[in-house]
Amino acid sequence: MKAVQVTGYGEKLRMAEVPVPDVTGPHDVIVRVGGAGVCRTDIHILEGQWAEKSGVALPYTIGHENAGWVHATGSAVTNVAEGDKVIVHPLITCGLCHACRSGDDVHCQQSSFPGIDTAGGYAEYLKTSARSVVRIDESLEPSDVAALADAGLTAYHAAAKAARTLRPGHRCVVIGAGGLGHIGIQVLKALTAAELVVVDRNPEAVKLAADIGADHGIIADGSHVEEVLDLTGGHGVETVIDFVGEGGATADGIGMLRRAGDYHVVGYGENLDLPTIDIISSEINFIGNLVGSYNDLCELMTLAAQGQVRLHTTKYPLDGFQNALDDLDFGRIRGRAILTP
Amino acid sequence: MKAVQVTGYGEKLRMAEVPVPDVTGPHDVIVRVGGAGVCRTDIHILEGQWAEKSGVALPYTIGHENAGWVHATGSAVTNVAEGDKVIVHPLITCGLCHACRSGDDVHCQQSSFPGIDTAGGYAEYLKTSARSVVRIDESLEPSDVAALADAGLTAYHAAAKAARTLRPGHRCVVIGAGGLGHIGIQVLKALTAAELVVVDRNPEAVKLAADIGADHGIIADGSHVEEVLDLTGGHGVETVIDFVGEGGATADGIGMLRRAGDYHVVGYGENLDLPTIDIISSEINFIGNLVGSYNDLCELMTLAAQGQVRLHTTKYPLDGFQNALDDLDFGRIRGRAILTP
Amino acid sequence: MKAVQVTGYGEKLRMAEVPVPDVTGPHDVIVRVGGAGVCRTDIHILEGQWAEKSGVALPYTIGHENAGWVHATGSAVTNVAEGDKVIVHPLITCGLCHACRSGDDVHCQQSSFPGIDTAGGYAEYLKTSARSVVRIDESLEPSDVAALADAGLTAYHAAAKAARTLRPGHRCVVIGAGGLGHIGIQVLKALTAAELVVVDRNPEAVKLAADIGADHGIIADGSHVEEVLDLTGGHGVETVIDFVGEGGATADGIGMLRRAGDYHVVGYGENLDLPTIDIISSEINFIGNLVGSYNDLCELMTLAAQGQVRLHTTKYPLDGFQNALDDLDFGRIRGRAILTP
Amino acid sequence: MKAVQVTGYGEKLRMAEVPVPDVTGPHDVIVRVGGAGVCRTDIHILEGQWAEKSGVALPYTIGHENAGWVHATGSAVTNVAEGDKVIVHPLITCGLCHACRSGDDVHCQQSSFPGIDTAGGYAEYLKTSARSVVRIDESLEPSDVAALADAGLTAYHAAAKAARTLRPGHRCVVIGAGGLGHIGIQVLKALTAAELVVVDRNPEAVKLAADIGADHGIIADGSHVEEVLDLTGGHGVETVIDFVGEGGATADGIGMLRRAGDYHVVGYGENLDLPTIDIISSEINFIGNLVGSYNDLCELMTLAAQGQVRLHTTKYPLDGFQNALDDLDFGRIRGRAILTP
Repeated sequence: MKAVQVTGYGEKLRMAEVPVPDVTGPHDVIVRVGGAGVCRTDIHILEGQWAEKSGVALPYTIGHENAGWVHATGSAVTNVAEGDKVIVHPLITCGLCHACRSGDDVHCQQSSFPGIDTAGGYAEYLKTSARSVVRIDESLEPSDVAALADAGLTAYHAAAKAARTLRPGHRCVVIGAGGLGHIGIQVLKALTAAELVVVDRNPEAVKLAADIGADHGIIADGSHVEEVLDLTGGHGVETVIDFVGEGGATADGIGMLRRAGDYHVVGYGENLDLPTIDIISSEINFIGNLVGSYNDLCELMTLAAQGQVRLHTTKYPLDGFQNALDDLDFGRIRGRAILTP
Repeated sequence: MKAVQVTGYGEKLRMAEVPVPDVTGPHDVIVRVGGAGVCRTDIHILEGQWAEKSGVALPYTIGHENAGWVHATGSAVTNVAEGDKVIVHPLITCGLCHACRSGDDVHCQQSSFPGIDTAGGYAEYLKTSARSVVRIDESLEPSDVAALADAGLTAYHAAAKAARTLRPGHRCVVIGAGGLGHIGIQVLKALTAAELVVVDRNPEAVKLAADIGADHGIIADGSHVEEVLDLTGGHGVETVIDFVGEGGATADGIGMLRRAGDYHVVGYGENLDLPTIDIISSEINFIGNLVGSYNDLCELMTLAAQGQVRLHTTKYPLDGFQNALDDLDFGRIRGRAILTP
Repeated sequence: MKAVQVTGYGEKLRMAEVPVPDVTGPHDVIVRVGGAGVCRTDIHILEGQWAEKSGVALPYTIGHENAGWVHATGSAVTNVAEGDKVIVHPLITCGLCHACRSGDDVHCQQSSFPGIDTAGGYAEYLKTSARSVVRIDESLEPSDVAALADAGLTAYHAAAKAARTLRPGHRCVVIGAGGLGHIGIQVLKALTAAELVVVDRNPEAVKLAADIGADHGIIADGSHVEEVLDLTGGHGVETVIDFVGEGGATADGIGMLRRAGDYHVVGYGENLDLPTIDIISSEINFIGNLVGSYNDLCELMTLAAQGQVRLHTTKYPLDGFQNALDDLDFGRIRGRAILTP
Repeated sequence: MKAVQVTGYGEKLRMAEVPVPDVTGPHDVIVRVGGAGVCRTDIHILEGQWAEKSGVALPYTIGHENAGWVHATGSAVTNVAEGDKVIVHPLITCGLCHACRSGDDVHCQQSSFPGIDTAGGYAEYLKTSARSVVRIDESLEPSDVAALADAGLTAYHAAAKAARTLRPGHRCVVIGAGGLGHIGIQVLKALTAAELVVVDRNPEAVKLAADIGADHGIIADGSHVEEVLDLTGGHGVETVIDFVGEGGATADGIGMLRRAGDYHVVGYGENLDLPTIDIISSEINFIGNLVGSYNDLCELMTLAAQGQVRLHTTKYPLDGFQNALDDLDFGRIRGRAILTP
């Protein structure tokens, strides 16, 4: 089959002919790829930023946001059958460690990560596990939802966790209305009645956020902290979800937070750096957010099937992988680029 | 009556003769003071560190950890009666704002703080509110429990919050086995079956921690992070409660924390400073802790009545206030100093 | 002022001239009534069903669903001011007992209940407490929201409690799409992405439920339990909210419930009667629901201001009280009858 | 190997010679049995009470409370190795359904139950799954803890669930201080500071309960409801855990419950039968409890290793199975009977 591979760091990806993956273990699932999201992480992999961390041997096939159809299954697979339309959770998890037994499989003690440390989905077929495949509604197409498998799932996880404490009358600031923020806003609208205040440097992103349900849009032009405080009688908001995490976002976001408020860290880049006395005197919390669990992905697929979460995509044939990467690199993509093998 | 007052910053406290406080509002409660805790904050007040923040007019009576007997009550007071033995919550709260209506009275939008911004308990009588007094068990003496009103209540609040997620088999590191840590350890023993690992620079404090129930005592001598990791198969602990918050405690504590773990900030002094990527990749949380609520104080008094929380105290007559402050300042107090008017 | 009073059980209500209530206590609030909901309970009071339970002395003014404008306030009232538009929580609570201190004021140990055990709102003015008044948005009219003060608040309380465990992909059966069910459905739509299945004997009520957002409407004609099971692959639903509680509703509702499901009891009349082995073998829960707390009422008023909860009302002048009661008694009211003094 | 089998309902068990079970699936684990609990359910199975429900084909080996040493493992087993000392969770679960993925494996949609619907542990070897075995501390012996695998696990599950809402100052009634109640009391002592009130008809059981930590023991002799109310100022207790569920226990227990209280149903036999108006007017909850999850069993084994939960056992060789059953049937066992193959 065709597969797009990393053959050397600092080099371009190359199309290769490789064998279709086989079922070898009882929980193996082979997926015929219908859509593979092209992600900025893929560019970082090529640059070698992940080389040491993943320890993957070259050449290997990248692509960690995948959806498609079940092609073959191992002997112990009972949750999907050949032909099922599925989205693929990015991790292959063990099912036996304490985290997996608690529904918190993201913290599995022996997971692997196709597209990062083993063969991924820029290919005609992908090998994953019964524990990673989620059947999707007939109304959904793999190439439309593939990018929800990782970026979207991270946004869902943070937004759904925040939603648990958001009550009517509460306000939630979303910092960053880009890819993740866009999904996060839609999730918050579906799960809460809280007032959403979206803050972004890009006026167009703020406008788009209003179109999908943000109650207030604020351009991050220097007076944005004050604007949020003005909206809240000077008290600040109950919850901030920070999808940016760099360029001063954390200091700004902390400035917007109410006493006893929750600050969700999702985006990253800069340090979180504040006096411990500020943490205790206002009794605020900082909550880390990684990608969502398998159950989170099931829930996100429900919202997608209900039409409550939508993602704009631009599709490319598998052969057009270089165009997709170039378009992403040069900021020419609206929404997400998807390879459709 | 006699009252010990701040008459000027940078000067010594002075004994004064002032009127016994009157009932003027419907919820007023006048308490005959049985014990007033002497706290390091009192020394900081004298140094002028709180002058700007509290805005209190001099002279005024200090003392914010108080217990005693109800002396007089306003017309709307239904929860205590003259003669009742009570401990006094440090804040006077409004009862009408959203925080008060949610049981979260510590975040009251219009509270006052006797001993800090109005007359406190280094005196024969103290004016407080029906919303601040907690009746205590007949077996308890005001002078024995007074110091639980603020320092002890803060430790209870953090330990009880942490206990909600601690299950058998979990481990909890307590950083700092001084005044607050000492209470925190006893509270954790009463409320959880988690394994307690106490870390302190002082070998004697570590030994004392073992006597009151710590399962492991570790001297913070440079290898303590490693020792905690060794105890946990390299994974770290589910919860850290940091009663220190300075001198590198936060970096050490973060190094001891497991994926998806909770870091409770109680002590303060240094900055919390770490890369946001470390927060999200291990999905850890930082949880602020201020003093406990009125209900927290009720619960702590239950533990005290059950003999599950004890505090060593050294008592001084009200006239001996200067000795008490000096002994505290020179590290000559074991446990807490209490004035007994 | 004019007030509509119970002068004898088994007799008709009578209009009387009584003094405008005075501020006598520090937390008193006098409300100029803008709307008073006419409730089936009012008919039961007249019939004498509440005589023994309430112990109220006749004559007295009824009406327990009230909204209006603040007319006068006691000395300790800080949360509202003269002229404020308010809705009135049905209970006057003490603010000092453990329940009140926990935000659970409905279980206050010394509450009173205007309209039931003391003078209510079928009058020009009503005496209540600072702890009972919630300011409402300028866009809302007292006569439009008054009926949300008790019936609506009960529905909100149950639906919001249920919403805490409802995730996308879950299903919730609402039994009864009458007054409470109508509000409950709107609240669930606002707070969750769960699929709503509404069951009612009345085909018109089922149709109306679909108009306000129910995903499935099922007429309770004998095959309704089976229909719900069919919808869920035979497994049943995660949550049932029973606004009926009589005529076999509980047995039907239990039959629709999934393993580990929650059954919310709101309506009442019949016994809950089932083998304990059925409770443990499927590990189901039965959750009682009374009227909501003060904070619940704040949240409901937020949803009303957002236009997410609406109530159809028919208004009558205070003098027309008998028409209102007759119309209610003969089933001639759509939505709720409101007296507008 | 030797195995004790049901060969006909209404007949006695018979010792048979059967093949040692083989590893056939990737997650299979063969355990050399060290202890098999003799349970009243075993007598009911022999009487034929479970024949229809389990659908098991005769002859088959019974015994559903097992512990021992790992003898052999399938290819996908990573959590235990040959020679490990283990206790065996009573269910074999799929790991792929929604319940399993949520840590709620007891509600697995395709579980099997060795000793009930397939071969159990009255034998030298038992076939179970990697998902069912929990490694136990070196200090514990399989024959000492085997009976915690089902009866003890049920008690742990209910007590640990109740403990989540029990705060210092709360009171918890335990109805029934027999096998399950005995474990429940020890678990509550380990996990909460709530006051424990134990109610039992048997004065000796009440005395034994006091020895293991009950704060109040009450003999159920007719005045027990009143005695509990007296203890609580007439208000009732926050939580009842009912390990009996027959002979009027539920009506008694409801009479002891405070407003907004939780009633945990564990024992069964009679109907829960009360007016829905009583459920809503006091806003009480009824919470079903089945056996605990895999993670619950891990936690219980931690408490056992800490010496916080102990069980009295009487041991019999496998050949002595008839003596064990007879002793159980005639009430001659204190604690639990264990077969030690």
